[in-house]
Amino acid sequence: MKLDRLWINARVATMEPDGEPYSAIVTGAVGCRGGRIAFIGESAEATGHDAVETIDCEGRWITPGLIDCHTHLVYGGDRAAEFELRLEGASYEKIARAGGGILSTVTATRNADEEALVRASLPRLDALLAEGVTTVEIKSGYGLETSAEIRQLRAARRLGYERQVGIETTFLGAHAKPPEFEDTGSYIDHVIGEMLPAVHAEGLADAVDAFCEGIAFSPAEVERLFEAAHSLGLPVKLHAEQLSGLHGATLAAKFGALSADHVEYADASDVAAMAKSGTVATLLPGAFYTLRETKAPPVDLFRKAGVPMAIATDANPGTSPLTSILLTINMACTLFRLTPEEALAGVTRNAARALGRDSDIGTIELGKWCDLAVWDIERPAELAYRIGFNPLHSRVWRGQ
Amino acid sequence: MKLDRLWINARVATMEPDGEPYSAIVTGAVGCRGGRIAFIGESAEATGHDAVETIDCEGRWITPGLIDCHTHLVYGGDRAAEFELRLEGASYEKIARAGGGILSTVTATRNADEEALVRASLPRLDALLAEGVTTVEIKSGYGLETSAEIRQLRAARRLGYERQVGIETTFLGAHAKPPEFEDTGSYIDHVIGEMLPAVHAEGLADAVDAFCEGIAFSPAEVERLFEAAHSLGLPVKLHAEQLSGLHGATLAAKFGALSADHVEYADASDVAAMAKSGTVATLLPGAFYTLRETKAPPVDLFRKAGVPMAIATDANPGTSPLTSILLTINMACTLFRLTPEEALAGVTRNAARALGRDSDIGTIELGKWCDLAVWDIERPAELAYRIGFNPLHSRVWRGQ
Ligand SMILES: [Zn+2]
Ligand SMILES: [Zn+2]
Repeated sequence: MKLDRLWINARVATMEPDGEPYSAIVTGAVGCRGGRIAFIGESAEATGHDAVETIDCEGRWITPGLIDCHTHLVYGGDRAAEFELRLEGASYEKIARAGGGILSTVTATRNADEEALVRASLPRLDALLAEGVTTVEIKSGYGLETSAEIRQLRAARRLGYERQVGIETTFLGAHAKPPEFEDTGSYIDHVIGEMLPAVHAEGLADAVDAFCEGIAFSPAEVERLFEAAHSLGLPVKLHAEQLSGLHGATLAAKFGALSADHVEYADASDVAAMAKSGTVATLLPGAFYTLRETKAPPVDLFRKAGVPMAIATDANPGTSPLTSILLTINMACTLFRLTPEEALAGVTRNAARALGRDSDIGTIELGKWCDLAVWDIERPAELAYRIGFNPLHSRVWRGQ
Repeated sequence: MKLDRLWINARVATMEPDGEPYSAIVTGAVGCRGGRIAFIGESAEATGHDAVETIDCEGRWITPGLIDCHTHLVYGGDRAAEFELRLEGASYEKIARAGGGILSTVTATRNADEEALVRASLPRLDALLAEGVTTVEIKSGYGLETSAEIRQLRAARRLGYERQVGIETTFLGAHAKPPEFEDTGSYIDHVIGEMLPAVHAEGLADAVDAFCEGIAFSPAEVERLFEAAHSLGLPVKLHAEQLSGLHGATLAAKFGALSADHVEYADASDVAAMAKSGTVATLLPGAFYTLRETKAPPVDLFRKAGVPMAIATDANPGTSPLTSILLTINMACTLFRLTPEEALAGVTRNAARALGRDSDIGTIELGKWCDLAVWDIERPAELAYRIGFNPLHSRVWRGQ
């Protein structure tokens, strides 16, 4: 078979779940045709294939392109001033008077047009791409009104045209109650009755998400939203058990959610429900770090139950202004005690699953998109061990 | 006066300690002549000066070039395999048998020639420079024998010829006891009697450092080393109160030390001694983070006593494989609750003082070296607020 491109003399971490560390091929090769992986194996076997272009990796490591499966990357403004005020000892009242908190981001996002949102988000996206990211999930949730939510999702999709990257969009209208609504119940009615159908009509949502927490939406409100999502054929996921245990993860599992995210307070019953439904646990160490939380997610329970763990930046202006997937990997190991291999699976194979895209991305397997990251490292553990260091040699998206 | 270069239309954070936030000039200009700052003031006033080259900063912020005043940047090997083994649950015995721990770095460093040390260190240095660092302190301490310590310090000095950066070298022979010595006392005798004079004879040490801790050297041993350093006219500094309170910081202050570093366990008496001697407290949040320590340094006591606080990466292969000064700033704010302005002073004005170089670098003042960092930011707090994002626009070292 004629290949478009062939990478040879690489150490390849295919990240298939076969029990071998990183499922590594020591003197490996990866071939691409039409943007898909058309060869994976030993370099010696690859030489039989004719290729338009052959790239000698000189022993570098190749991993699947990295996947950031939980971000709020598109928003207006930033919260640096609020960050500074808080550290200077300002009271929450003073910060609120100075326009701080999530509503300041909502105001800035509502005031930005699509072009401004794209321009503001591109440097953040570029920071991710510079570390080998090839797929990014982006949520709405700073518009909190139909037109602004749609604008946020359109801007997210636009990023996929501005750069060589796969974008998955998630509708998070149920992120916070906007000030123009009296209570969360009436806002959820509005989300279900108007916002979600409008977003869906434009084909802007790959999934539906919500924030289930005492300070946000109750499990009963989330359940109504999930029923509406399912009736439209949309998969769901949930911000659950971040600050307290409401069994949102169990609720998510009941709806066959792709993932339950944060999950610091998930207990054995939540874990069992997630294992049964195949729901991924998406761990977000950047928010844990920024909020100086002390209760880590129950990693050992997830391991024992066979719940796949993904990790992601949670890039957002308030609780995780983090745009480094490599630092996220280090944090998952340092703060949550994942092994480097688990952490790498968390931004490849399991992140793909958290997006419902595991048939297309997340491992280096025949027929999947040829999304690769090539690294100047001696062993994959370096991606977890180093802090604030980027050993990316090159990045390949759909074979290019 | 004819200037070599003039930066105009900048917001300039001079970082002089004058009580104004960041000592900022809103429409500022910086002029350079012979590598030194020859103009600092309003852009409007700068137009009277003739300059060979004028650079329009278009409103960007200029800060002093950043200073990383505590690193162990030059070493052989890495400890990624050990990092992975530990997270996989390996016992300390197994890690030791696999050649882990500081002695593995000592072995790799002893086995590397000067050229190999320079080659291994350049990517780490480049990561710092990419974030606006213009001066780096580098310690020995992985040779632990005369020839290897000298080689490490020569390699550190070489980095200053390979790149446009100021290098300060510190002799840290008293970092750990090498295996060929029976006890720390006999090794300290060797450090004092042979290693220090040999290093000093080659002019390779700008200062002398030691690791004062139960697992390293006692205050009495450090005192003997400091007396020897003083008799050679060398300033001292100390790794002190990191894991326990031995009053090494008080000892350092007694010797007029430039800095006491780590200082998590410093108490009121240590702080008072440091205030009296003008010793800088150098905070190292990367090691605190990596070791998952819970006792933060007594920042409030330092503030009240007027002890200047510096912050640094502590870049080293074991307890802080960190090569991002911006992440260090964020960690100092997030983990130690410094304000963004204190953190920026910690990598500029106070870091210069921790190196005894405050007459030459650390603020933007007439006569100092023209070391600058130009940033694509709206306010200096962004340097602390963002995580894993590099807004550096350009970097200037000695006017270039
Ligand atoms: Zn989130
Ligand atoms: Zn150190």
